[in-house]
Amino acid sequence: MAAVAITTLADVIAALGGDLHGDAHTEIDSLQPLAEASARSLAFLANPRYQSQLNESRAACVIVAPALAEVAAARGAAIVTPDPYLYFARLTQWWAARVRPQSAARIHPSAVIDPSATIGADVDIGPLAVVEADARIGDGARIGAHCVIERNARIGAGTRLAARVTLGFDCSIGERCIVHGGVVIGADGFGFAPSQGAWVKIEQLGAVRIGNEVEIGANTCIDRGALGDTVIEDGVKLDNLIQIAHNVQVGAHTAMAGCVGVAGSAVIGKHCTVGGAAIILGHLSLVDGVHVSAGTAITRSINKPGIYSGMFPFDDNASWEKNAATLRQLHALRERVRALEKNLK
Amino acid sequence: MAAVAITTLADVIAALGGDLHGDAHTEIDSLQPLAEASARSLAFLANPRYQSQLNESRAACVIVAPALAEVAAARGAAIVTPDPYLYFARLTQWWAARVRPQSAARIHPSAVIDPSATIGADVDIGPLAVVEADARIGDGARIGAHCVIERNARIGAGTRLAARVTLGFDCSIGERCIVHGGVVIGADGFGFAPSQGAWVKIEQLGAVRIGNEVEIGANTCIDRGALGDTVIEDGVKLDNLIQIAHNVQVGAHTAMAGCVGVAGSAVIGKHCTVGGAAIILGHLSLVDGVHVSAGTAITRSINKPGIYSGMFPFDDNASWEKNAATLRQLHALRERVRALEKNLK
Amino acid sequence: MAAVAITTLADVIAALGGDLHGDAHTEIDSLQPLAEASARSLAFLANPRYQSQLNESRAACVIVAPALAEVAAARGAAIVTPDPYLYFARLTQWWAARVRPQSAARIHPSAVIDPSATIGADVDIGPLAVVEADARIGDGARIGAHCVIERNARIGAGTRLAARVTLGFDCSIGERCIVHGGVVIGADGFGFAPSQGAWVKIEQLGAVRIGNEVEIGANTCIDRGALGDTVIEDGVKLDNLIQIAHNVQVGAHTAMAGCVGVAGSAVIGKHCTVGGAAIILGHLSLVDGVHVSAGTAITRSINKPGIYSGMFPFDDNASWEKNAATLRQLHALRERVRALEKNLK
Repeated sequence: MAAVAITTLADVIAALGGDLHGDAHTEIDSLQPLAEASARSLAFLANPRYQSQLNESRAACVIVAPALAEVAAARGAAIVTPDPYLYFARLTQWWAARVRPQSAARIHPSAVIDPSATIGADVDIGPLAVVEADARIGDGARIGAHCVIERNARIGAGTRLAARVTLGFDCSIGERCIVHGGVVIGADGFGFAPSQGAWVKIEQLGAVRIGNEVEIGANTCIDRGALGDTVIEDGVKLDNLIQIAHNVQVGAHTAMAGCVGVAGSAVIGKHCTVGGAAIILGHLSLVDGVHVSAGTAITRSINKPGIYSGMFPFDDNASWEKNAATLRQLHALRERVRALEKNLK
Repeated sequence: MAAVAITTLADVIAALGGDLHGDAHTEIDSLQPLAEASARSLAFLANPRYQSQLNESRAACVIVAPALAEVAAARGAAIVTPDPYLYFARLTQWWAARVRPQSAARIHPSAVIDPSATIGADVDIGPLAVVEADARIGDGARIGAHCVIERNARIGAGTRLAARVTLGFDCSIGERCIVHGGVVIGADGFGFAPSQGAWVKIEQLGAVRIGNEVEIGANTCIDRGALGDTVIEDGVKLDNLIQIAHNVQVGAHTAMAGCVGVAGSAVIGKHCTVGGAAIILGHLSLVDGVHVSAGTAITRSINKPGIYSGMFPFDDNASWEKNAATLRQLHALRERVRALEKNLK
Repeated sequence: MAAVAITTLADVIAALGGDLHGDAHTEIDSLQPLAEASARSLAFLANPRYQSQLNESRAACVIVAPALAEVAAARGAAIVTPDPYLYFARLTQWWAARVRPQSAARIHPSAVIDPSATIGADVDIGPLAVVEADARIGDGARIGAHCVIERNARIGAGTRLAARVTLGFDCSIGERCIVHGGVVIGADGFGFAPSQGAWVKIEQLGAVRIGNEVEIGANTCIDRGALGDTVIEDGVKLDNLIQIAHNVQVGAHTAMAGCVGVAGSAVIGKHCTVGGAAIILGHLSLVDGVHVSAGTAITRSINKPGIYSGMFPFDDNASWEKNAATLRQLHALRERVRALEKNLK
């Protein structure tokens, strides 16, 4: 469980704004979902679909949109704000800053730092981290324990790397990014030329360039480019265990859920979303505003914004087996329908 | 190859029980599958379907169920036991304890341990591990080289972490668990509120709580909860490269094969199994005893135990292409069939 | 961006051969794709399909096959060679050797090396690496920062491990291999016997044996065998985030793209390719020369070389929904077609 710290609604409003309906002295000791809230919890209702939870909730106060102000206030305190989910996001940030201990920045004596590296002001470098020659780390960056920052890599101001992150040589990451544990940025892309039944390695001569305010989930991999660079633009959010192959470009503010795979040289637009375990094949492009459903394989370029899907609908195993077996003869079935149609004419 | 150590059937029976048919002095130098067994191997036959392998096997002794006692004894030594596969599992444990060197517990001088951490008796901490403030490590636990145990994390007695595991701050893991290399427990869940075309981070204020006798495979990730905790109950077994998102609950004794992805707030029952690379979408629930086939995407809640599947049946590429193309017009095909039916009436 | 270093076409030809059409003194400062080439770039055209790019490219020189020699030479310098892609691969190797700083081999003083380990000549061991008892590291091998080489593991001559690689106890990797960051070789295979609603661990007594000239991508996992070993033959290339389960055998020169999962005891032939995110179920075999498309689930053995596919064709979401819903009644639809056919006879 996370740490607990008591505050009041007055403090919340002072920090984040919003119209308070109810007693400003009400004490709050936790943020909770409506259904799990206690009498000292602050909860939120972003989706009107869950309005029925409002009356059953024990929350001390609920964050709601204006349309629900009256209903919410009727049951207890309420904070009214145009976008409750956004308010909630900011609230979690404010809350985290309060409850999480902030240690002063320090460079742990066990870290191995090459003298040619440039370390900014207020940089925190964790135990046993390695910073190689000519690396540059911006002001206020936090490098977790066991990170490896290879030669000539660059980290922007305010960026935080969790423990056990590799940033490969010549690669760069911008400002205010968050990189979670086990991430590998800058491994070789997967490139080989076939020759006499074997594979001849194509050295990967590019690097990885990552913009500002990017977040990268645990154990995700972003390979360096073969010739040019792999590029992740500003504000991109990648979940865990994602594979970004060489020379991929991911447009600004695109978000991908866990286990996604993007093959080499794919170009993904801005403001796209990619559902979990979807795959995007190589050498194709998606325009801005494409939304790929979970588990979908994108096998050709998409030139029109929208939602795209391709997932086998699951079923009880017996039903699936029958349908799957028939699917293997689907083309023949169509021919039979065609024959029937001809016959009837 | 693993180490070799000679034993006798008498020793095996003394340690693990079972009815021996044959010479107790028979020497054994390896455990092997029936098909690969040598004249000094101990093998097992759990599945009657493989009975035909019995006569062809060169194994010195075969572990079998009572129904096969006679057949097995006719060809050589046999250990008869009600559940040969379970007997075999226990045999591997006994074998491993014999052949693998057990070093005495020690805290390696290169480990970086905060003085406020609580370290139990007989704890082994490997080279260059990091244990942060207020972490608690139970008696007999083994922390591999390069592990990072963040502040206020707890590890139960007898739990073993392989090299390069991260246990995030405030997270806990129970007793007698095994965590393999590269695992990241407690990275931030993937939560953002959209705002003006960008994503505002929802700080993940929960933690991860893991029960007893849980095993977690290499490079698997279990994210911390957004508000409450992500929960893995007792006896859960997770294979490699699995993604468990924030606030997921996995019921006791559920097992998941490699590359599975479970999205946020999914609630999975007890005694479930999930096949490799299956995905389970977020905010849904599976009752106890649900078995999901490999490669299946679970897109809605399942309220009835059973086997569920949804995998496109593979085929030679030409056949697949024809069927897949037709599939894209399946709805239209149904309309044609409907028209035919109407026509015929 | 990667480092820049100027060379001439004369130097390239001297190192790699090929027929030069044009001025040998032409200076080159980069290798680039045709479309992105500058007036000092060397580019290549391997696929005649992209011939149209030839005239638009600003490349100083283009590597082409004899059939395109005339066309290429008409627009500028050209290197003519029977296999331009292979030539390009060798060129990247030559280029990388020129532009990447080669530090002298050294054993970093912060590495923790057991005195019983055998370290060959010219071995480089990075900061904070751990080499356990009885490990053997061949001549010229390079062990990255934070690697963990467990007891009795073996690394062949000239093999390079990036930062943060685990090579498990008793496991071996051959000569001239490349292993990228975060790889875990030799975690336990996933094996349990069910007993009274819980799972009893089957200790994994085998190891992993990897041949020569194998490349393994970032965060990929290769589990040790249950009884015998997991085997990766010579020349195999594995991309990132791949799961190779216990007792799998991967035949020589087989290549797998990212996010592939191979379940236990699968036997994959030589010269196969497996597309990204494909899965291969356990206890089945693929002959040599099988090519599995991306996203395909191989659920039974394949006895004939060829291309195999099984991916749900993606579509705009509305079309997909209609077709997917119909797919769940496909078997019934076939029955309706059958009834119509009967009716018509």
